[in-house]
Amino acid sequence: MMGRMTAAVASHELYTKHADTLQRALTAIAERGYWSAFPESPSPRVYGESAAPAGEAAFRAYLGSDFPLDQPGVDGHVATESSPFGIPLDVRYPHSSPDALIAAATAALPAWRDAGPATRAGVCLEILGRLHEHIFELANAVQFTTGQAFVMAFQAGGAHALDRALEALAYAYAEQTRQPAQARWEKPAGKGEPLRMTKTFHVVPRGVALVIGCNTFPTWNSYPGLFASLATGNPVIVKPHPRAVLPLAVTVRYAREALAEAGFDPNLVQLAAEAPDEKLASTLALRPEVKIIDFTGSTQYGDWLEEHARQAFVYTEKAGVNTVIVDSTDDFAGMCRNLAFSLTLYSGQMCTTPQNVLIAREGIHTEGGHKAFVEVAQGIADAVAKLTGDDARAVEVTGAIVNDGVLSRIEAAKAQGEVVLDARTIAHPSLPDAVVRTPLLLSTDRAAPAIEGEWFGPITFLVATDSTVDSVALFRRIVGAKGGLTASVYSTSPEVLDDVERAALDVGVHLSANLTGGVFVNQSAAFSDFHATGANPAANATLTDGAYVANRFRVVQSRRHV
Amino acid sequence: MMGRMTAAVASHELYTKHADTLQRALTAIAERGYWSAFPESPSPRVYGESAAPAGEAAFRAYLGSDFPLDQPGVDGHVATESSPFGIPLDVRYPHSSPDALIAAATAALPAWRDAGPATRAGVCLEILGRLHEHIFELANAVQFTTGQAFVMAFQAGGAHALDRALEALAYAYAEQTRQPAQARWEKPAGKGEPLRMTKTFHVVPRGVALVIGCNTFPTWNSYPGLFASLATGNPVIVKPHPRAVLPLAVTVRYAREALAEAGFDPNLVQLAAEAPDEKLASTLALRPEVKIIDFTGSTQYGDWLEEHARQAFVYTEKAGVNTVIVDSTDDFAGMCRNLAFSLTLYSGQMCTTPQNVLIAREGIHTEGGHKAFVEVAQGIADAVAKLTGDDARAVEVTGAIVNDGVLSRIEAAKAQGEVVLDARTIAHPSLPDAVVRTPLLLSTDRAAPAIEGEWFGPITFLVATDSTVDSVALFRRIVGAKGGLTASVYSTSPEVLDDVERAALDVGVHLSANLTGGVFVNQSAAFSDFHATGANPAANATLTDGAYVANRFRVVQSRRHV
Repeated sequence: MMGRMTAAVASHELYTKHADTLQRALTAIAERGYWSAFPESPSPRVYGESAAPAGEAAFRAYLGSDFPLDQPGVDGHVATESSPFGIPLDVRYPHSSPDALIAAATAALPAWRDAGPATRAGVCLEILGRLHEHIFELANAVQFTTGQAFVMAFQAGGAHALDRALEALAYAYAEQTRQPAQARWEKPAGKGEPLRMTKTFHVVPRGVALVIGCNTFPTWNSYPGLFASLATGNPVIVKPHPRAVLPLAVTVRYAREALAEAGFDPNLVQLAAEAPDEKLASTLALRPEVKIIDFTGSTQYGDWLEEHARQAFVYTEKAGVNTVIVDSTDDFAGMCRNLAFSLTLYSGQMCTTPQNVLIAREGIHTEGGHKAFVEVAQGIADAVAKLTGDDARAVEVTGAIVNDGVLSRIEAAKAQGEVVLDARTIAHPSLPDAVVRTPLLLSTDRAAPAIEGEWFGPITFLVATDSTVDSVALFRRIVGAKGGLTASVYSTSPEVLDDVERAALDVGVHLSANLTGGVFVNQSAAFSDFHATGANPAANATLTDGAYVANRFRVVQSRRHV
Repeated sequence: MMGRMTAAVASHELYTKHADTLQRALTAIAERGYWSAFPESPSPRVYGESAAPAGEAAFRAYLGSDFPLDQPGVDGHVATESSPFGIPLDVRYPHSSPDALIAAATAALPAWRDAGPATRAGVCLEILGRLHEHIFELANAVQFTTGQAFVMAFQAGGAHALDRALEALAYAYAEQTRQPAQARWEKPAGKGEPLRMTKTFHVVPRGVALVIGCNTFPTWNSYPGLFASLATGNPVIVKPHPRAVLPLAVTVRYAREALAEAGFDPNLVQLAAEAPDEKLASTLALRPEVKIIDFTGSTQYGDWLEEHARQAFVYTEKAGVNTVIVDSTDDFAGMCRNLAFSLTLYSGQMCTTPQNVLIAREGIHTEGGHKAFVEVAQGIADAVAKLTGDDARAVEVTGAIVNDGVLSRIEAAKAQGEVVLDARTIAHPSLPDAVVRTPLLLSTDRAAPAIEGEWFGPITFLVATDSTVDSVALFRRIVGAKGGLTASVYSTSPEVLDDVERAALDVGVHLSANLTGGVFVNQSAAFSDFHATGANPAANATLTDGAYVANRFRVVQSRRHV
């Protein structure tokens, strides 16, 4: 009986090997306090002296070569990347037809389904461990495809991505084991013998899963969907952004190795590298076999997927207008420094970077007395200027500009307000062809059309509103209409904090209050902070909660008398 | 701070009052063994001598009267019911405009949201208790609107509906409390002070929920969605089937009373009784404020909702082709008796009633030797004939025919195969105008077009297949294409049982094996059996699992430094 099979493999050696980590992750998602499984410091004291050079060497070895990936139905190679840091990449990825990818994924499904949740969790944890062994290789791949500075690429693209993967994996495991694999049912029947049945609850995946990666966070934004789908039994096809293939190719490579070593079909994880203008994501997304899609990227394409890929469950993270309400503060310098870092980090190319900073035109109260609107704007601008004043240090925060679209947008934005701080071109000290800019800060009025939509990149509008009450109203209107992944407020007034919190509930956006230290609104911590709410237009799902995993599988029950 | 408000009301008196029941239900959904909170026997020994006559009197008092419901925006009354048992009903329900219903629901939301999961669970449990006090009144309302016999109306429409409601409520509570209301986050920061934050996780409902009831199981099929939505903070508009309004009107009446007594807006639960041809369900379903829809009924309308109500999460239970595979048995008489009861119960008007019984044309092995196909067909027919031979006893199993559509379908079906047992008109001994029929059994070939779709009502096809292997292939093809809510198999061969179980996994349908005693394929037990899988075309959701509740709310987080 298959139910007994499932129960029997619960003690797969990889499950046993990783059971403690899984249990710790399960505790973490229930408590949502601080926890991390993957150290975020790239220091040799943590990872050893040889890890960084070995990882960099592994990265360099990919450049100008055929990427080593033994996938089915390879019909050629594609090379579509171009580094924001200006180094030549020229990695050639094997290209497979959609038919070949889907056929191989479909064939891999039954044995993976029958392995059951515990074995799948063990194998997925083994994959994470394998990826962690190659974290420096991944970090280099992320850095040079996305334009993130190295430390950020290591953290967001490596350690934090792995933490988010483990978080999704923990939710997936918890959800699949919410009911036992088998239950005994015994119903009293008056004076007669009770009715007795054995019920077996099979976890059955949806089908083939598709992950569509983005340019800026190829691993961080892809791992949760990848591992949520894989852990729930679905073979996954990973379709990277054509400009950020390498981090996911490396991921797929090691995932396939770990799967094969564990005795499973490596085609459970496949790379779908696309030729220019192939529109491979759309082709795959509409295939009837594809039942789950995870996407991060533009609102336009996310909406297209939601509208057209009706055979699939579609999880999207799209654009929004992240907003800060500045009402008052008891740490003006801290506020300015904190905001400046948030605006500058990775040149504002995070989905969580604030864009509209709403400030009453009358100015604000601070610990040093009243500050006029222009003083607040100048305070933030000065903090950005200070943070980016030294080129060598600046590039470690800004990274590079991910693509030409961002450069044009910076130029276009200058017509949308009064320039408080201009974007400055920085010469990268060691990478002469890197495209680096400091943030552009503009001051505008609340009626400016520009503040009604997203300006992706290092573009910030310091918006003069009629009052904090007006700021809250504007926040409600714009975030309600366009969504947001983050919001924050600065106020010394408990009433204002409560008003803004209520507004955040109404428009469904996560809120940070009075960040003046080492926590930034654009950073979310796995196992504690939820990323996106699914309650506003910026995303239809959350990283990670029950809803993110619960529909990636179904329970099919069988029952028979004892 | 609102987070503290939520925590403070966790000790609402109704939560305290019902905490033990909630905890027991939480245990039950985790174990999925046998448990029930609401006794299913209508015996005076359980409910007391006066309960039955009082309930019947309360039911009678509604007839020919204005139903007592104090709702907003009433613009007239509607009376649309007609009893399958032929008694005059003529209950006049208040009719409100969609605008009035939605405005009232919307206004009721914020306080209900802010009450938090524990208080909402307490209030919902109080509503269930109130409904349980009126279970005989509900049972009469279900009986005389649906045509169910009394005991079934009491059980399925009363006790089991309440159990299913509690099951949904337990999942909703568990899901909302998966993360704490508040968490403390403390991240080590090298030699410096740790970063310390307080994080508040607000549960935020989706918006207005709509429940669209069906004719045959107005309470059983509506309660899970109603209580899942209500418990997660969404005001609910209940749109009953125009022929089965009373059970849901009674439900809404007592829900509103309990809500008001608990200090909440009674408009959290409203009845949307519709005038003939008003198409109120469609009007409400497309309103932007409506974010959740639960529907039970036709595939055509369910598909329409899924296609058009894109602003909402739509949970549908639709039609399917429930299939039995008869391979062999060691209890031929038990098998025939069990199948006969399943086919006869409520005249096959259950979404779970088997329709296609697949039998190899060569016949089957039994404990009494080989039985030819015609002998198997005759054995089942004889068991049905015996069960329905005595009119007075028969009507307590068959109930009455719910509407004229079923009668016409019985006639139309006779052309679709060879009649093995004809549908017989029964005179109800005490209700002379009741419309009662015994089941129609037809024998057909595997190639008969009729077996490819649903024939709702007491219509069974005994299908001659080439072999059990062919039966399994047919099962895969038809259930794969049209879906099914139940499936069952009779076999003495472990290999055949495993083959069918694997086929059931592949097409995503729940399977019962070798039912020959007091458990029937069309019955599912709350807290143990999952109803529908969401993995085949018959339904896109399950009663009840995590996926059924997880997207009815979102978590919106706020964080600030300690």
